[in-house]
Amino acid sequence: MRHSLLAGGKRVRPALCIAACELVGGSEEQAMPAACAMEMVHTMSLIHDDLPCMDNDDLRRGKPTNHKAFGEDTAVLAGDALLSLAFEHVARKTKNVSADRIVRAIAELGKAVGSEGLVAGQIVDIASEGDASVGLDILEYVHIHKTAVLLEASVVGGALVGGASDEEVEKLRGYARSVGLLFQVVDDILDVTKSSKELGKTAGKDLVTDKATYPKLLGMEKSKEFADELVRQAKEQLSSFDQQKAAPLLGLADFIAYRQN
Amino acid sequence: MRHSLLAGGKRVRPALCIAACELVGGSEEQAMPAACAMEMVHTMSLIHDDLPCMDNDDLRRGKPTNHKAFGEDTAVLAGDALLSLAFEHVARKTKNVSADRIVRAIAELGKAVGSEGLVAGQIVDIASEGDASVGLDILEYVHIHKTAVLLEASVVGGALVGGASDEEVEKLRGYARSVGLLFQVVDDILDVTKSSKELGKTAGKDLVTDKATYPKLLGMEKSKEFADELVRQAKEQLSSFDQQKAAPLLGLADFIAYRQN
Repeated sequence: MRHSLLAGGKRVRPALCIAACELVGGSEEQAMPAACAMEMVHTMSLIHDDLPCMDNDDLRRGKPTNHKAFGEDTAVLAGDALLSLAFEHVARKTKNVSADRIVRAIAELGKAVGSEGLVAGQIVDIASEGDASVGLDILEYVHIHKTAVLLEASVVGGALVGGASDEEVEKLRGYARSVGLLFQVVDDILDVTKSSKELGKTAGKDLVTDKATYPKLLGMEKSKEFADELVRQAKEQLSSFDQQKAAPLLGLADFIAYRQN
Repeated sequence: MRHSLLAGGKRVRPALCIAACELVGGSEEQAMPAACAMEMVHTMSLIHDDLPCMDNDDLRRGKPTNHKAFGEDTAVLAGDALLSLAFEHVARKTKNVSADRIVRAIAELGKAVGSEGLVAGQIVDIASEGDASVGLDILEYVHIHKTAVLLEASVVGGALVGGASDEEVEKLRGYARSVGLLFQVVDDILDVTKSSKELGKTAGKDLVTDKATYPKLLGMEKSKEFADELVRQAKEQLSSFDQQKAAPLLGLADFIAYRQN
């Protein structure tokens, strides 16, 4: 569990969670258990997706993948334990937040993982591998479920424990959806343009496995334009908030758009 | 998810959860989401334990195991989705229970799965496989973590959503711990004395894989005596409750002790 959770990574989900909480008047302390939970869930999905029976990857966050280091059995179990710890951690460690908001944040996290979230994305991703007929609709479904839903849960979970109104939650949900898709478009672009060393994971893999990606379906130029459009949309969702307080979330959208790994 | 969850099974955990809730004055309706969650978690642990990289089993609840039916990738993901759905289901569907009790039940469930629960038991189980020096202490550790903790979470979770006092929770925890160990002692006995058809899973497997079991370490006679002692202990924990209201939990202890599969 530590091998994969503490291997570094950009911590985008925790950052989004805390920033959303603070934007609506909450504190970092209130958001921290949920923020850590989002990273645990993300890490669990990486461990399981890297397994030989799935993407069969050897390198992750610049280190051997979990099953390379500890064997497949331990990797499956480390993922299971991280997933349950995520929920337990939010339930047990969230302080100074009303219990009904904690329950709502847990429900949000649960939805992001299961058959309407990460798992749905990975199932369709596996099923469409090597299928040359995969179009933008399937690609977008996979990205929304594999990436955007957990970014959404991070933002909405943070907003909920921070005391957001329903209206604030919905605006932040819109922001998260744009950012979630943006995240994956940029991932696809980086897979083509960067080395494994720069990425900390196997680069060029999408090309080798003949996977549908934005650069492949739209071309590199149009993919970059789409990324720019998504940054714009994400920021627009935050226009009704105090722009100084919204600076971290605005900055995170830029960070996701212009990151190099 | 449906293949494994709806394959039958004894539903011991849901029954314990509902019976505990009703014993402390709660209703079946209050306990049902938690009861279903316990079965989802149990099913998920069976799916992952049956994987080729773990126990490599072909038969479960009289049907092909999940990976035999759908492949390893889907089996891993079905387990993941069931695990997260369990938490989401408790959070989203529990009605007429205060949110702080829901949060406590979720924390209890989380602890039962992770590195202090099912996963701990399975890790030690795998690590001690084929080790002839495994004694009663390791055997008991494995059984407590692989079985007893989730039975405990079922009973305690049910008691919590049913409005139990702290004292009631602790007595029911004691009952659940005895029943949890009892459950596994009986499983070990049945593995030796019953056929695969009668069990709905591969019988005699413990002998073939040279696994430490109670009959092997204590002999069959002493194993049965130990089971009788555990039933007695379990019932003793319920002595301060109204015996008529405690009848379902008393009966479940007998059911677990004298079941034939």
